[in-house]
This record gives sequence, structure tokens and C-alpha cells, in this order.
Amino acid sequence: MTKLGFIGLGIMGGPMAGHLVAAGHEVSGFDTNADALARLEAAGGRAANGVTDAVAGAEVVITMLPNHPQVEAVVLAAGGVLESAKPGTLLIDMSTIRPETSIEVAERAGEREIRVLDAPVSGGQAGAEQASLSIMAGGDDEDFAAALPILEAVGKTVVHVGPHGAGQVVKAANQLVVGGTYGLIAEAIVLLEASGVDAGVGLDVLAGGLAGSRILELKRKSMVAREFAPGFRIDLHHKDMGIALAAARQADVALPITGLVAQLVAAGRAMGHGSLDHSALLKVVEALSGAESKE
Amino acid sequence: MTKLGFIGLGIMGGPMAGHLVAAGHEVSGFDTNADALARLEAAGGRAANGVTDAVAGAEVVITMLPNHPQVEAVVLAAGGVLESAKPGTLLIDMSTIRPETSIEVAERAGEREIRVLDAPVSGGQAGAEQASLSIMAGGDDEDFAAALPILEAVGKTVVHVGPHGAGQVVKAANQLVVGGTYGLIAEAIVLLEASGVDAGVGLDVLAGGLAGSRILELKRKSMVAREFAPGFRIDLHHKDMGIALAAARQADVALPITGLVAQLVAAGRAMGHGSLDHSALLKVVEALSGAESKE
Amino acid sequence: MTKLGFIGLGIMGGPMAGHLVAAGHEVSGFDTNADALARLEAAGGRAANGVTDAVAGAEVVITMLPNHPQVEAVVLAAGGVLESAKPGTLLIDMSTIRPETSIEVAERAGEREIRVLDAPVSGGQAGAEQASLSIMAGGDDEDFAAALPILEAVGKTVVHVGPHGAGQVVKAANQLVVGGTYGLIAEAIVLLEASGVDAGVGLDVLAGGLAGSRILELKRKSMVAREFAPGFRIDLHHKDMGIALAAARQADVALPITGLVAQLVAAGRAMGHGSLDHSALLKVVEALSGAESKE
Amino acid sequence: MTKLGFIGLGIMGGPMAGHLVAAGHEVSGFDTNADALARLEAAGGRAANGVTDAVAGAEVVITMLPNHPQVEAVVLAAGGVLESAKPGTLLIDMSTIRPETSIEVAERAGEREIRVLDAPVSGGQAGAEQASLSIMAGGDDEDFAAALPILEAVGKTVVHVGPHGAGQVVKAANQLVVGGTYGLIAEAIVLLEASGVDAGVGLDVLAGGLAGSRILELKRKSMVAREFAPGFRIDLHHKDMGIALAAARQADVALPITGLVAQLVAAGRAMGHGSLDHSALLKVVEALSGAESKE
Repeated sequence: MTKLGFIGLGIMGGPMAGHLVAAGHEVSGFDTNADALARLEAAGGRAANGVTDAVAGAEVVITMLPNHPQVEAVVLAAGGVLESAKPGTLLIDMSTIRPETSIEVAERAGEREIRVLDAPVSGGQAGAEQASLSIMAGGDDEDFAAALPILEAVGKTVVHVGPHGAGQVVKAANQLVVGGTYGLIAEAIVLLEASGVDAGVGLDVLAGGLAGSRILELKRKSMVAREFAPGFRIDLHHKDMGIALAAARQADVALPITGLVAQLVAAGRAMGHGSLDHSALLKVVEALSGAESKE
Repeated sequence: MTKLGFIGLGIMGGPMAGHLVAAGHEVSGFDTNADALARLEAAGGRAANGVTDAVAGAEVVITMLPNHPQVEAVVLAAGGVLESAKPGTLLIDMSTIRPETSIEVAERAGEREIRVLDAPVSGGQAGAEQASLSIMAGGDDEDFAAALPILEAVGKTVVHVGPHGAGQVVKAANQLVVGGTYGLIAEAIVLLEASGVDAGVGLDVLAGGLAGSRILELKRKSMVAREFAPGFRIDLHHKDMGIALAAARQADVALPITGLVAQLVAAGRAMGHGSLDHSALLKVVEALSGAESKE
Repeated sequence: MTKLGFIGLGIMGGPMAGHLVAAGHEVSGFDTNADALARLEAAGGRAANGVTDAVAGAEVVITMLPNHPQVEAVVLAAGGVLESAKPGTLLIDMSTIRPETSIEVAERAGEREIRVLDAPVSGGQAGAEQASLSIMAGGDDEDFAAALPILEAVGKTVVHVGPHGAGQVVKAANQLVVGGTYGLIAEAIVLLEASGVDAGVGLDVLAGGLAGSRILELKRKSMVAREFAPGFRIDLHHKDMGIALAAARQADVALPITGLVAQLVAAGRAMGHGSLDHSALLKVVEALSGAESKE
Repeated sequence: MTKLGFIGLGIMGGPMAGHLVAAGHEVSGFDTNADALARLEAAGGRAANGVTDAVAGAEVVITMLPNHPQVEAVVLAAGGVLESAKPGTLLIDMSTIRPETSIEVAERAGEREIRVLDAPVSGGQAGAEQASLSIMAGGDDEDFAAALPILEAVGKTVVHVGPHGAGQVVKAANQLVVGGTYGLIAEAIVLLEASGVDAGVGLDVLAGGLAGSRILELKRKSMVAREFAPGFRIDLHHKDMGIALAAARQADVALPITGLVAQLVAAGRAMGHGSLDHSALLKVVEALSGAESKE
């Protein structure tokens, strides 16, 4: 049993905190949303009245926040986790943010003898609810070892991928491949259909050969049927493409395909499809070939 | 047993003709390369002295040629297959070419009562040697049914994907997805390594999740190790990206990612890597981040 | 006075042939369109009954055709210019086509002692009507010198840019810069407007500084006003982007921006804007930001 | 005569402050670099010992800083301009930063009754030294009117382009067009040279027609000669492409060409050319066509 502070009880953090309570941990959670706090209490956790309260006495603090400004406000700012936590506390930031912020958090935490892991997840809302997330952790070996039993209460695959920030970099690499793969399959569908070929039959062939992918396996039927219920929303993938490009800038590398795909994902959002599943990148590629005007 | 004419006995066509002989067919083959003819004879086939001779009396003619100009010269031109074959002959063009040429071949063949399938393959040299090719066929149902026993002698997966040209369109869609996926994985590797993350560890995580693909499964270790022995050469993929864009032009669609990836594949060739495996697209992405100058 | 054969009397070729008559030359023209022939007669030329007739006795033959298949049919095929013209004739092909076809024409013409220039033009319909075309010629010095008086009857700027094919390469370079510049200005307009900035005011500033261009000078007001009457149609620029990419492939170079811009121009056509001015590339960029759905 | 505070006395700010002294204003300046302070004193200004000191009693405060984190630190943070300046002060931020930070500065300044303009410049070091900058200002009419005499002491063209942030948006639009135009001209050069055409002759033709631009006019000779002395460094353009994409994200639009060009500029930096002139984008395009390996 570990005394846990948990900040950020939204669509992802809420169920994750519930699993930690169920695993026998003493969870003190905080969120600015009162309903989220009520759900934590109903699940057997304690509703804290602020960050300081949630962190007080905790051995491990978990943060699950939308993006780096929130992490900066909750962790780094005055009255935040670093000021409130006692030396020796382990902070596990499970938010998906830019690697450079994760590295800055680790540096600033080190000054206060607080240990840190960046541990972003993939698997989405379903993964959070079913405790089947994939977790990519960056940080020191002993801190990863200490965190592992806790992370295994919310994830199925938990991998230590490198030093501070490495979790975010791997997550960014994952998202750029996923976004680009949707774009490529969208282009394949548009080409097949405009050429008079049944896209379902065509993609079946692709799925069975070197072009095969987990996305083709899971999503080809729904894409061809134009079913875009999320899943993982375009708005979130848009945020993640921004992180991938920020990571590239930080690492001083050029990623031309990612640079273009990021704009196509941005187009999905700008065209009003932000709350559809990211496979709706198909709607962007279709618009470029006049899908609307041809209908 | 079928009387077969087979034109184009190269790296792909040579072993395919051999399998057809082994399956009990009477194969009369032609190639401008004398060694290729000698190999067919050694395998039990007959070396014809030209296209007309190879086609004479054949019930089925197979062509396996580098690109559309060769198909035009061998099939459409004076003294070619259409002039030499008897009415009722079934022509199976297994070359990878632009869909519009396949459609033209079908139209011209129809005028002479010759039946046609376009039936490009994937699986490369190894697939040809092991008779394990994937074959995507376009054309009429009854012609596909007639061709199936012959195609099954050289391929493992044989699918009828639609009308004339559809085989080429599906092959083009396959190649654009494959080329783009190599590009995306290359960008992931460059980002991971420049960020100080072990790319092998990072790609293991990607391979296990939504970013997973057949290419990540088969090629991630060799790419990280910079082993680029073909496999399927960049030069050939460059040809195939040209076909994909020609197919898009013909179908009046826009494929932005493919347009960019085609130029990166062209860069691979222009940089002198044309005879490396297509996974060497990594060398192009690396060059953009100064891999050479940083070493 | 020169005896001229002129093949291709369309929107461009028609007025050009008229200027040559007006300049005192004896022009024998051919086109498959009867109205075009009638216009030539009305202008004082002779309507020939075919290619052979137009070329008979000519000292100089000019061809002005839509694309390379037409040049192949009119110049290279049986009964074409090369077969019909007498040795020593100078053929000036003013069509915009792939450099490799121009080079092939030059080689084949050389075998028959016919001299050739490739001399594509820019300036569009207005330039043809006002005899103010820019002409980029490729070929030998003495042939250019011989052609100059004739070319100056239809163009204002006539430049010898290099050997056979060089005229086409310069035209291709011109068109890729023009197409890309329209795309960049379109992106600037979309950014300005969506940010609440008056695009007219913003583009005035750009036009006066390092971002300034002939296109900003001539087209910024009409683009902001969404006036897209041609001018030079998207359909023609789509053809020209294809030539630019074919030239790149032939020269074994990679042009990433051009590869992307070509797909955006293709999108303009696929979205149904093919007969609008090429500045309508703005409609493609707008569609990516949901212009339609936001209106 | 106006009492001026001036923060940021670098390559740009230093000469600008000097011009303001020469124009008769009382300039109190600050920079963390002691040499910069000494130069201001030598020019007749007063070296302040910090932001608060520079701002004390000023009617107008000018900031000229590298990027948004510096603006946040100097203007928004504790002890910064907003805390130190008296109500009614006019703050002119001439830094090139993201529009959203300019808007945040305006909002925060408004709470303290401080008036603000964002007024980024173009024209580079030469423009700063010769007081010939182009200045794009965003903010209220009366504040622009008040600032105009001061801005005219450092710039030749001073334009009020819209509300708060509009100056940054116009600057971003300018930089994306400039960066993209360099990329297009680079591709034209690579295509011309690889095709055996004299690039100087070819670009002369382009410069005289619809492809013409200020960049072709000023830079085509140096680009063909591979002379890349700055001018405006790739590192700075890399920063500006980041601002353009941040502005696009903020405005919820998609800019596909800009997304790609940004990565090519990033490649220039990653390849080690960051301190060359931005026309050195040519070296990136060349690398993709194997310039190094072909030499």
C-alpha cells in the first residue's frame, strides 16, 4: 500500500485513479472539476481541496494533465507539486507533453530532491478504463523499479525506454507514425475508389502483405464505411503532432513527412472534424479530391 | 496441361516460368537475354526465337516486363502479342505498370478477341523463387477463373480485385503505403536517436501498439543497424511511386503525402542509393538532419 | 519572307500564325478544327488539308500542340513532319512538353537532316494575341539565329537558353516557381484572414519587401477579392506540374516542394476548379481550413 | 523629445537605440551584455542597471528581444516592464514573436493601463543600421499615431496593419512566403543544372516573367555562385518558421507548403548551415539530389 497523490481526474486520470484505489493504495486526488472529485470519493479515494492537500504526505504523486502549460502550473509554479511534496517523493507525470518540459521538470525536481519519471501512455479512454494502457517511461532505473508496481495497476505494457524525457520522445514517435499511417491509408482509399476499385477488397490485399499494419487491421472497415466515432479524437492528435514537431525542433532534426501530416491533421480540426476519430483524416484527403463537390 | 507463352524471363519471370514448367505446363519462353533463355531450357521449357514464336499456338500468354514502354513494345506494337496470338488467347500481363496502359491493352486486345488480365505481383525476388507471390488481378470473372490454376502455380495469395486496371491500382496503393511507412519509420528513428533514446527499444514499443506494422516487424532491426541489402531496390520503388502518381493523375485525385514521399524516394536514388533496399529511405531522412556531417 | 508551315491553330497557335502572316510570311497552316482553318484563311494564310500538305515546301515548320502525345503523333509518326519535310527544314516546336520528348524529336530529326528548336512560351493567350510572348529556346546557335526573326514576330523576349530540351527545362522551372508562389501567397492570405488581419493591407506590406513578386504585384487584389477568371487555367498548370516532375525524374533530382505543390494543383482540378485561373489555388488552401464549412 | 526606455541592445536593438538618440530622444537602455551598454553610452544614451531602471519615468518603452520567452521574462514577469512602468506608458514590442504572446501582452498591459503595440520589423541588420526597416504594427489607432514619429526614426516604411497581434501575423506571413520562395528557387536551380542548362541564363528568364520576385532579383546570382554570407541567417528563419506555424495553429488553419518548408529550413540548421544566409536553403535541396556524392 502506497500513499498516492493524483492530480488530474479527467477522462483518463479518473479511471486510472479508480484502479489504484482498487489495487489497495490510499489515493488523495485533486481536480478543478467537482464531479471528478465526487467520482473519486465514490470509488473510495479522498477528494483533496487543492494540489498542496493532495500532495501532502504522499510517497508517490501522479499527474495526468492536458498539456505542458497545465504541467507547468501544477508542478512547477508557486504552490505546485515541487513546493508541496516532501524530499524523496516520486513524481510520475503521465501527461503527454513536449520532452523539453519533462526534462525541465526533472531538473527542477532534482533541486528539491524529488524523483521524477515521465510516463505518457497510449491506449486512450478504453485503455484507461480497462487498465490496459501502454506506458513509456523515462527516468532513472531505480525510480522506474519503484514505480513499476503502481504503473502495472493501470497499464498492461510498461516499458522503461530511457532517461528523463525519453518517454515523451517515444510517445511522439508513436504518434507521428500513427498519424502518417492514417494519412497513407486515406490516400490509398481515395485512389482505389476514384479508380473504380472496391476499396474494401483492395485494402484486404494490402492488409495481408508488406503494407499491413495494426491500423489497417483495426480500422479499414470503419474507414471505408466512413464511421468515425472516436476512439482518439483529431483534436488530441493535433496536439500530439505539435509535440512531435516540438520534439524534432528540440533534437535539431528535420521530419518532412511529419511536417506535412501535421498540417493535414490541423486541416481535419480546421474543417470541423476535431471531435471525430483520427481515422477521419480520410475526410481531409477526400476534400482535396473534391469529395463534397462530386457527391 | 496448358500451352503457355512466357515473355520476360528476368529475375522475376525466370523463376516463375520455371514453376510453370514444374507444374506440368508446356512453356515456350522468350527474352532478349540469351542466358535467360538457356536457363528456361535447362528447366525444361522451350526457348523461342522471338515474341511471335513464343506466342504461336499458346492458349495462355504471360508477360513479365519492366515497365509500360516494354509492354507497349511487346504487346501492342507491330509483330507483338496482339498481332501474333490467335483469337481466344488469354493474355496475363504480370508487369507492374500504369493502370491506364493496362486499360489500353485490354481495349486493344478486345478488338482482336484476345482476353486480358492485369495481374501485378508483390513479394519480390524471394516470392518469385518460392512461388509465394501475392497476385492482384484485374479483369473479367471468367478470365480470372481460367487463369487461377496457372496463377496459383506461382503465387500463394491470388485475389480478383476488380475490372481491367484494378490489379495495377491495388498494386499502386500498396506501394504508396509501403513507401510512406518506410518514410515514417525513418523519421521516428531519426527523432529517437537525436533525442538520445535507444531506437531499438523505442521501436519495440511502437511495434507492439497502434503504430505497429508488418514493416516494423520485419525491418526495424535491420534499419536501426543500417543494413540495407535488398530486398526490393529503391530504384524499383522509385518506378512504382511514379506509377502511383500516374494512377492518381488518371483518377483525378490529389495525394499530398504520396507526392512528397515520391520525391524522398527519388532523393534516395539521386543520392546514389538506388540499388539498396527501400528501407534505405532512412539514409535520405538522415541526410536532412546532417547525419553525414555529424558523424 | 519565309515559307512557313504551322500546325496547331488553337487559342495560342491561331493568333501566332496571324502575326506571322502580318509580318509578311507565307503561312500554310493545319488544324483538325475547321473553324481554326477558316480563321487562318481570313487572316491571309492558306488552309492546308493535312500535315503533309502544310509542310510541303516549307523552309520553317512551327508546331504548337497541347502535349507530348500530340507532338509524337504530328512530328514523329508515319506521315508526320519528319517524314514530310525536306532536308534542311527548320522545325520550331513551341509546344510545352517534357524535355525528354524534345530531345527525342531532335535526335530523330537529326537522322533526317532536319534542324530543330524547342521553343516553349509563357505569357498565355493575351501574350499570343499581343505578340508579347516570352520564348525560351533550346537548340544549336545557328538554328536559333535563323529562327530569331520569326520568333520576334510573335514574342517580345526571345532567349536562347541552351541545347535541345533546354527551352522545356526552363519553362518547367518557371512553372514550378509560379505554381509554388501561388500556393505560398494563398497560405499567407488564409493565415492573415483567419487571424483577423485585413489581407489586402497585409499583402501590400509583403509586396513592398523581400516577399515581393510579380504575382503579388499583379494578382493580390484579385485573389483577396476571390476573382478567378483566367488567365491561365488550373488544368494547364496541372499539365505543366506533371512536366516539371517528369523533367526532375529525367534529370535524376528530387524536388520536394514541387512534389507537394503538384498535388495541390491536382486538387484544384479534382475539386472542380480546373477552368479557373491558377491563382484559384487559394480555393484549395481554403478548403483545408474549412472555408466552406465556416461560411 | 520623448523619454524612452529601450530593452534589448543587440545587433538590431543597438543601432535602433542609437538612431533614437540621434533623433533627439532621451534614451535609457538596458541589456545583459556590458558591451552593448557601453555602446549605448558612447552613442549618447544612458546605461540603465536593469529593466526597472530603464523603464523608470519613461513615456515610451521599446523592447527588441530574441523570442517570446525573453518577452515574457522582460515584460510580464515580476519586476518586468508591466510592473515597473507607470500607467499611460506606451510599450512598443518590436521583437518577432508568436501572435498569441503579443495578444497576451496587450491583455495583461491593459489591466495596468499600459498601452501596447506589437511592431516587428523586416530588413535585418542592414535595415537597423541604416534606419530603413519595414515596420508592421498591430494595436489601436491612437497608439499607432503616438508611436509613428518614434518608429519613423528607425524605419522607412511604417504600416499599421490591424489590431494587437496583427503586426506579428503579417511578419509571419512575410517569412513563410520568403522561406518558401527560396525553396522554390533552389528547386529551379537544381533542376536546371542537373538538366545541363546554365542556371544563370535560366533564372534571368524567370526573373523577367511571372516567376519574377524580389528574391530572384537580389539573390539569383549569389545563389548560383553558392555565396551564402548573411544577410539573414537560417537559424533566425528557422525561428520564424516556428512562429508562422504557431500562428497557424492559433488561427486554426492548415498551411501544408509552410509545414514542409519549415522542415527544409530545419534541415538547413540540422545540416550545420545555421549561420549561413537563408538562401542556403539551396544546400538542403542539393543534398537531396546527392550534390555531395556527385561532386
